[in-house]
Amino acid sequence: MSEAIRVGLLGCGTVGTGVLRILAENREEIVARLGTAIEVVKILVRDADKVRDPAVPRSLLTSDPREVLEADVHVIVEVMGGYEPARALLLDALSRGHHVVTANKALLARHGAELFVAADEAHRDVIFEASVGGGIPIIRTLREGLAADRIHALYGIINGTSNFMLTAMSDQGKSYADALADAQARGYAEADPTMDVGGIDAAQKLSILIAISFGLDIAFEDIRTEGIDRVTADDIRFAKRFGYTVKPLAVAKAHADGVEARVHPTLIPASTMLGSVHGVFNAVLVSSRALGPVLFYGQGAGMMPTAHSVVSDIIELGRNIQRGTSGRLPHLAFHRELVAERAQRDPRLTRCPFYLRFEVHDEPGVLAKISGILGDHGISIRQMLQETSQPGEAVPVVILTHVAQEGAVLDAIAAIDALDFVAEPTCYLRVEDLA
Amino acid sequence: MSEAIRVGLLGCGTVGTGVLRILAENREEIVARLGTAIEVVKILVRDADKVRDPAVPRSLLTSDPREVLEADVHVIVEVMGGYEPARALLLDALSRGHHVVTANKALLARHGAELFVAADEAHRDVIFEASVGGGIPIIRTLREGLAADRIHALYGIINGTSNFMLTAMSDQGKSYADALADAQARGYAEADPTMDVGGIDAAQKLSILIAISFGLDIAFEDIRTEGIDRVTADDIRFAKRFGYTVKPLAVAKAHADGVEARVHPTLIPASTMLGSVHGVFNAVLVSSRALGPVLFYGQGAGMMPTAHSVVSDIIELGRNIQRGTSGRLPHLAFHRELVAERAQRDPRLTRCPFYLRFEVHDEPGVLAKISGILGDHGISIRQMLQETSQPGEAVPVVILTHVAQEGAVLDAIAAIDALDFVAEPTCYLRVEDLA
Repeated sequence: MSEAIRVGLLGCGTVGTGVLRILAENREEIVARLGTAIEVVKILVRDADKVRDPAVPRSLLTSDPREVLEADVHVIVEVMGGYEPARALLLDALSRGHHVVTANKALLARHGAELFVAADEAHRDVIFEASVGGGIPIIRTLREGLAADRIHALYGIINGTSNFMLTAMSDQGKSYADALADAQARGYAEADPTMDVGGIDAAQKLSILIAISFGLDIAFEDIRTEGIDRVTADDIRFAKRFGYTVKPLAVAKAHADGVEARVHPTLIPASTMLGSVHGVFNAVLVSSRALGPVLFYGQGAGMMPTAHSVVSDIIELGRNIQRGTSGRLPHLAFHRELVAERAQRDPRLTRCPFYLRFEVHDEPGVLAKISGILGDHGISIRQMLQETSQPGEAVPVVILTHVAQEGAVLDAIAAIDALDFVAEPTCYLRVEDLA
Repeated sequence: MSEAIRVGLLGCGTVGTGVLRILAENREEIVARLGTAIEVVKILVRDADKVRDPAVPRSLLTSDPREVLEADVHVIVEVMGGYEPARALLLDALSRGHHVVTANKALLARHGAELFVAADEAHRDVIFEASVGGGIPIIRTLREGLAADRIHALYGIINGTSNFMLTAMSDQGKSYADALADAQARGYAEADPTMDVGGIDAAQKLSILIAISFGLDIAFEDIRTEGIDRVTADDIRFAKRFGYTVKPLAVAKAHADGVEARVHPTLIPASTMLGSVHGVFNAVLVSSRALGPVLFYGQGAGMMPTAHSVVSDIIELGRNIQRGTSGRLPHLAFHRELVAERAQRDPRLTRCPFYLRFEVHDEPGVLAKISGILGDHGISIRQMLQETSQPGEAVPVVILTHVAQEGAVLDAIAAIDALDFVAEPTCYLRVEDLA
């Protein structure tokens, strides 16, 4: 058996502990696949005296990052999260000739380019399967499994917290507030849930998927991002009556004039594969020229799935280390100098059907006015639904449009919301008629 | 840009033509990912004068295999099918120092071991993504994406023809014969459909999946294989009433005393992800220790999906060729000398719920006798369904059992089928209560 692959671990929270558990529990399988063992030699923690999981060897703990970086290791694994000191430590690790595995999507979405340049200069690799889709090997699949194809579009349910909440609202009729409280009670949502429910976490992941699918860097802040807090239990109920389910979707599509990117709650047909992804599960549907649709499904978060992706990455690097090679694949899948230049597309150009819920005081001529303004903006109506009103109360008028341009829809909504009989800002959700 | 990867193609039928089309149509994407082009330099065909797709360059055609094998190539791609001369040509190619890509599941299932030994001796690679699951990158995922985990079980819908037929029977109430005629008319089934509907194609694929998931070689002939021809439209209707759908499933599970392997039409809950895989689509659900369930879904056959997998394999080899390396992964995922020995498990030990359809003449005491014999064999009844009988005609009695041992069920059926009131051999189908 050849030399063990030696690893330094930066961080030992949930994912770090999971990595140590997998290395211990699956040691036999890993050795049989890699041909050698993986040994963690040093672990950076904030407090070396804290009581930890039995899988964490106390003798390896240190609170001094230099002890990890200066150790005799092949690979540095970063599972501490946050921008700093993670960024500085990984740049240091690369300059010392260590390879890097990271699960840190926020770091990659903001400082990925800097890390990858440093890695190329040092002839070392940075890989990051755990950064998107938890345990689903989606990064590896897009970089290698789909390497021969032209990717047209991808649709991801890549935030488990949001999907859990929308599933609870759909299956149990819960309100948004109750679904959030439930998610927090189960540990699926943070005390401040903004990153998840606001779509920011999904936008960071989408920016990584776009880079490796289309060869284009989009800052996650530039992705049109809308949270699931705009969805009510009523919207989910109305969507059902049209045959749809509401899912937190990250969407990217390649067009001749640029790449369309957006994150928002979306109506998709309930009977599809993606419409059947419930609870904390994640899935990514990829549509490409030769392959057609392919879908990858699994647990998008959690200690063990995420840790598994980290260990798979260590194994991949181990295979390169055994052969003394690096840079086998470009970090972001493409040799950028060989990619035709592309830009992000103006989101107002997005075309899809829309779900519109108007809250109106039921006066004569209301429907005529709404449909008139929609018509003036080139928006035609596919289906409509109106509930009976209680005297004096606002009543929802729900319209499903044919394919329309986002810019026109937003303009029409602005015009309609200025009318006297409109009781509150109109809710709009996009529709994706996936097969 | 570095030297092009040069390829010799053995065979230019549907998949071979697809390979040439992808290399032409996706040339830009492939170059941007691999950093160099892939050039086909010679193509073996039976008849060089036959009229072919415009993507096939006539100048490269030859009917002499030596012209391909002796050409200055890095990779030989085998898409001719069958055992010979494919086997002999690939052994020759390896001895000349060429790497090999093959889509030939039958060849691998029968002669894989011989090819892999020859490849190891020649320090060359044989890869085979297209052999299972058409366009779904399932081989790559099992070999690399799940490399850090212990796989417990896999469930595959890996024969598109059978799934198309059972879907047609389920959705349109077609008979088996009509569904087969429809599949043949669309080109999904051969004139002799035995390989597909009999489960042999799926058993060959399952033997490959078992090798790379569990490190165990099982000859496909030793896998308990039952065809979908035993399923009637009535069975599908009854299954629906129990909340199930009938799917052509390949199943493998690891137990302490061996690996269970089987291919047969199976009742699975209709509302699950795997139960939502319809038509010619394929999917593989893998259950492993850390990851939990993951599912991969896509087109399991067809010119372009299968050809895409072949080209992805050429790209993978191209990355190794650029670095002058080979043997990065063991062909069948494991270093066999490091795998704990395992055997196939006696199929009679399989435990699952069973669907039983008895065709009986409705006499007093029939149910008591059937349930008595089941009880004597330790089989308990979960649900039962009986349709009203026409005088003189046999009537179906349908029973869903709790989990039972296959050996006991087969023994009980033999005892029941010997009774006077039983009009025809009892139909039994296995049930998998997947989540």
